[in-house]
Amino acid sequence: MQNTIKISPLTASAFAPFGDILCKTQAPSAFHINQGNCLRHHDLAKVEATGTNARVMINIFSAKPYGLPFHLNMVERHPYGSQAFMPLSSEPFLVIVAHDTGEDPAKPQAFITQSGQGINIHRNVWHGVLTPLNKPSDFLVIDRGGDENNLQEFFFPKPYLIK
Amino acid sequence: MQNTIKISPLTASAFAPFGDILCKTQAPSAFHINQGNCLRHHDLAKVEATGTNARVMINIFSAKPYGLPFHLNMVERHPYGSQAFMPLSSEPFLVIVAHDTGEDPAKPQAFITQSGQGINIHRNVWHGVLTPLNKPSDFLVIDRGGDENNLQEFFFPKPYLIK
Repeated sequence: MQNTIKISPLTASAFAPFGDILCKTQAPSAFHINQGNCLRHHDLAKVEATGTNARVMINIFSAKPYGLPFHLNMVERHPYGSQAFMPLSSEPFLVIVAHDTGEDPAKPQAFITQSGQGINIHRNVWHGVLTPLNKPSDFLVIDRGGDENNLQEFFFPKPYLIK
Repeated sequence: MQNTIKISPLTASAFAPFGDILCKTQAPSAFHINQGNCLRHHDLAKVEATGTNARVMINIFSAKPYGLPFHLNMVERHPYGSQAFMPLSSEPFLVIVAHDTGEDPAKPQAFITQSGQGINIHRNVWHGVLTPLNKPSDFLVIDRGGDENNLQEFFFPKPYLIK
């Protein structure tokens, strides 16, 4: 059915066009610091904060869970900065992203995380809102502050069914 | 004893001269987003990345645990950026910070976190290395990348005993 989207496991190759996966195995490099007592999984994400008075912000989002199948009515994007979501629990969450056709979002893609995976959505990439699935979940969120309005929303003429 | 440092609970008022506490109750503001499905605990930390080609980095640190009493031999500071540590487990960790006398670090202070508390150490503040206490622990770390050397270390003539 054209309006159904099938959920896939979140992998680096599938997610690369949209952003970064925050997990130890995806680090471009890892090295010991603090006299060997700490392994630094280094530089996992492209963090961007642009515009007037731009800065990087750290926040905690407390999100209610959603059920499956999930009715996707809208996606949003942030033209001035990236947005990273690191779960503070081991619960999986749903990741919805879409390419841009030049006029509007293409048909979205849906991924489910594994325990220990967070994501960084690159600047100006269409994505769904934060959607934990099982229980209320907290996330550390690294995004952008600044003067300009950083939110664009797109409402689909017909909702997608994600399952 | 002069070279003993007593561990205190981590509170916002005690930690304010050194940095920010990353936890929901310390947010300057909180508001609902995503049609009421998500509570955004907003803007918890002063994130700084200065110098040539400066940028904010996201990393994961996997740290071995330390025991108590802890022998503190050195502190370090980062003149070009802040450094935030958010635990990815509910284990407490030790936070060691020190004022600067203008010549070197003053006698350090030691705090123990509660479950759910992370910290952001402000730019140029003397601090101990990452010290989880009970078991190996992962932390999401938000710090600074750039061209200049961003690490200064100070070794105490006589170690402190933290307990």
